[in-house]
Amino acid sequence: QFHRNNLWLVSEAEIPEPPLFTSTHRWEDTPEQNVSLTKPGLSPAERVREAVDCLPTRLESPLAADVPPSSSLKRWTIMDFSRAYSSGETTPVQVAKRFLAAVKECSGPTMNMAFFISCDPEDVLKQAEESTLRYQTGTPLSVMDGVLVAVKDEIDCLPYPTTGGTRWLGKARPCEADAACVAQLRACGAVLAGKTNMHELGAGTSGINPHHGSARNPYNVGKVAGGSSSGSAAVVCAGLCPVALGVDGGGSVRMPAALCGVVGFKPTAGRLSNAGVLPLNWTVGMAGILAGTVEDAVVAYSAIVDQSQPSYLRPELNLPMLTSTPSISNVRLAKYGKWFNDSSEDIRTCCDKALQTLRAQYGWETLDVTVPEIEEMRLAHYVTIGSECTASLAKYLDKLKRSEIGWDVRVALGVYGSFSSRAYLNSQRLRNRQMFFHKEIFKTADVIVSPMTGVTAYTLQDDALSSGELDYINGAALIRYSIAGNFLGLPAITVMVGQDKGGLPIGLQFIGRPWSEATLLHIAFAMQEACSKNHRKPVVFYDLLKKD
Amino acid sequence: QFHRNNLWLVSEAEIPEPPLFTSTHRWEDTPEQNVSLTKPGLSPAERVREAVDCLPTRLESPLAADVPPSSSLKRWTIMDFSRAYSSGETTPVQVAKRFLAAVKECSGPTMNMAFFISCDPEDVLKQAEESTLRYQTGTPLSVMDGVLVAVKDEIDCLPYPTTGGTRWLGKARPCEADAACVAQLRACGAVLAGKTNMHELGAGTSGINPHHGSARNPYNVGKVAGGSSSGSAAVVCAGLCPVALGVDGGGSVRMPAALCGVVGFKPTAGRLSNAGVLPLNWTVGMAGILAGTVEDAVVAYSAIVDQSQPSYLRPELNLPMLTSTPSISNVRLAKYGKWFNDSSEDIRTCCDKALQTLRAQYGWETLDVTVPEIEEMRLAHYVTIGSECTASLAKYLDKLKRSEIGWDVRVALGVYGSFSSRAYLNSQRLRNRQMFFHKEIFKTADVIVSPMTGVTAYTLQDDALSSGELDYINGAALIRYSIAGNFLGLPAITVMVGQDKGGLPIGLQFIGRPWSEATLLHIAFAMQEACSKNHRKPVVFYDLLKKD
Repeated sequence: QFHRNNLWLVSEAEIPEPPLFTSTHRWEDTPEQNVSLTKPGLSPAERVREAVDCLPTRLESPLAADVPPSSSLKRWTIMDFSRAYSSGETTPVQVAKRFLAAVKECSGPTMNMAFFISCDPEDVLKQAEESTLRYQTGTPLSVMDGVLVAVKDEIDCLPYPTTGGTRWLGKARPCEADAACVAQLRACGAVLAGKTNMHELGAGTSGINPHHGSARNPYNVGKVAGGSSSGSAAVVCAGLCPVALGVDGGGSVRMPAALCGVVGFKPTAGRLSNAGVLPLNWTVGMAGILAGTVEDAVVAYSAIVDQSQPSYLRPELNLPMLTSTPSISNVRLAKYGKWFNDSSEDIRTCCDKALQTLRAQYGWETLDVTVPEIEEMRLAHYVTIGSECTASLAKYLDKLKRSEIGWDVRVALGVYGSFSSRAYLNSQRLRNRQMFFHKEIFKTADVIVSPMTGVTAYTLQDDALSSGELDYINGAALIRYSIAGNFLGLPAITVMVGQDKGGLPIGLQFIGRPWSEATLLHIAFAMQEACSKNHRKPVVFYDLLKKD
Repeated sequence: QFHRNNLWLVSEAEIPEPPLFTSTHRWEDTPEQNVSLTKPGLSPAERVREAVDCLPTRLESPLAADVPPSSSLKRWTIMDFSRAYSSGETTPVQVAKRFLAAVKECSGPTMNMAFFISCDPEDVLKQAEESTLRYQTGTPLSVMDGVLVAVKDEIDCLPYPTTGGTRWLGKARPCEADAACVAQLRACGAVLAGKTNMHELGAGTSGINPHHGSARNPYNVGKVAGGSSSGSAAVVCAGLCPVALGVDGGGSVRMPAALCGVVGFKPTAGRLSNAGVLPLNWTVGMAGILAGTVEDAVVAYSAIVDQSQPSYLRPELNLPMLTSTPSISNVRLAKYGKWFNDSSEDIRTCCDKALQTLRAQYGWETLDVTVPEIEEMRLAHYVTIGSECTASLAKYLDKLKRSEIGWDVRVALGVYGSFSSRAYLNSQRLRNRQMFFHKEIFKTADVIVSPMTGVTAYTLQDDALSSGELDYINGAALIRYSIAGNFLGLPAITVMVGQDKGGLPIGLQFIGRPWSEATLLHIAFAMQEACSKNHRKPVVFYDLLKKD
């Protein structure tokens, strides 16, 4: 069952393909339905303006008319915050104060949710005050002005150190500037709300962190939030921020998003800048978006795309023109039955029902396909991320006491350091081979659909809290559907489609063609519209726009 | 002294840069002086026509007037052959017969030059007959029609197996089609003249081959030809072919070219197709051209460039408009004195004199620069080529008896297989770092100039002939100036600038900006014009156009 036993599948394999060293795709002019392509050269705030024009008009309904019944789930969107600020119903400072009070409450020993590694109330308030002043003078920078955005502690964001979930990296590697994506959000007026908790070095999927506490799942505080972007998923789930940033090197945005019932969106490799993201690896990880709604994922996506490359080398920003009725047609969803069904019964049933809904409501067909060599791909990805992590961290790890590292990550680093250059190169040949397999599938299908995880949020064992936990059974089940997004750089998104018998969220994943983010967002929005009415609220949930 | 002792420079190094996995450069619109840019979509023969228009007119002098005095060196060019065929002074069949007689003579036990691994007289004659027929009907395909071109036995060329210099690879891996570059030459009417000898698996620089005999240097049959493209350099040197193909993964075209006193030209990585070249590595090797003159290198270059990529991703074919007076001006030559002088006294003196000639004749200035971390680059290249060789050959080597492999290559493969993925990744970080260093130099200089090798052709030990030879001192001296061309994918060319006290050739190397082949060829041509009059003939030399 354990990874290493099967490593010969990679190191000794006969692979005809030459290596493909990165997951970055060449420029392609991928035609997409109902897409708005923005000009290059726009500022982040200008791009956000374009995104707002793509949102469905029904969201323009006034805040007051939309107060939800207490049992069902209504997530405030960026647009809700923006309208409440613009109309003067509330201010960024008021919202920031509610946020800080909520963070204080749930970080305390009673709730011990461990959402944040650091959150500086003074810095949050200062940003909120500046934003409030801009609204008072009628000069908000964008609809994101005053909107709280939390940032995974793997991404540089002033004034905080970047710990990567460790005890020591924040000291060893000073944070000197905002990461590119953080700077872009700041330029839109967003209030950077603190650094969220994560699995140590991103080297696990549970979010159990022996140094900073383990982020708990807002749907059930006895369950994990998933990882490695555990805090980012949990804060969005709990209503503390409509949007958070994560980093996804092996599903690390999408898995916790699924476990916490929020949207997890990893664009195409190369679509976002890696500047200021901890280089824990170079060829599989990138920033991603966690959001309460697909609409908010669209707005955040528009803000943080990297448009610094010449346009002939990089596609334009592709925004989906969302409307309340399905805005694209004849979507062909590829499903690999054997893989799809390799999940718990509740997940299988729920995800199948979601596909039936798509067919019934929109007439979208499911195609049966085979994705070959999935286990080989997972191992090749494991060798890749492990080798790159070893090389990137060596200058720190060589000097570090092992006792500074949690037990599970200590084991992982031991394995990571053992890979040969032959295993690494063979892994890159498998990458090329898998790219070919996936491109074949995309000749007849628009997206590949799968559950996001094989299990829902599992129990947080008390004895794991101080040491970390190695749980290969649940770990393998969590990561089963994540790899293609990272290893092949394909865009992928998860959206909540239901809850298991215990009320824990279930995510459905769509994996798209390179550069086809608009299509993915269209599909995710249609999926959300078809099933979000039935979702129940998390147990831990804050309404930051409630009337006092 | 030996490589491995210093490997910590790579595996344990602290390197701030992320990895750069290939040496392929992005499209760049490099402005070059006096360049002819050809349209995309031309056939190889059409491109050759464009190249002919770029040759200096003085070469149009009639063959008869140009018979050289017997002591000095006159190399027949492609144009000489073409004119002799067109005028009916001789035919491809007559030349092919002389060629085959010469090959027979020098392959025999008396001379034992071991230029070829395979050469099928019937196949050569058949091609020559077809070419002769085309001249008779006035329909030659190009000026290369009927011109003999030898091919390193690392490149697929029907009807031969591709041995890679081994005993076994030709059987284990059937050759099913011409390599792309061979097919292009065939489309120009070239007569493919057989497969030339090489260092086993390209894993050495001497050309000493215990399986197929060791290619001897035509200037001194007791000396090595250099390698790994030993036979290709030697046949051009000996007048058997005006042009031959080699493969250059670590100077393997340029080093034997220098030792044999011919032109060795490795274009920018990605300029030629790798299809049908043995994949002994993926990120450092590529085909290259060995030619008697720079003019012939230009013609062959025009024939074999890969124009199959969309033009916005790949520069157009850039041909130098050669004229007998210097055709570009104000060339700035970067020289790193400490490195430049790390060569034998004869080489140092001769290369310095060549630079003085360039200054005196053309007014070209030399700039003092520093190329940092040259030893680290060599080791990083060594880890890279070794790791890639291990992964690419594993499927054969795992099943092979070690006794099938020569002693020196057996040792090399043992070292190659020991590299960790961390060492490989760190090597790619050093690649990125060196790319930066070199780009800095190219901000103020057009080319970097160095000797091609640190020593001239050294003695072929009798006892090395049957076992192979590990000579790290001479090996390191040979390869000292080769690495940037491969590891950074820069175009590079060597041209003979003189002879040492023993009469052995000395090559001067120019390393250019990415995609600046036209500039390199201009410079090499100017260099050739300034000093070729003084070159003496090789001891083993055949005049295939002599009057009967």
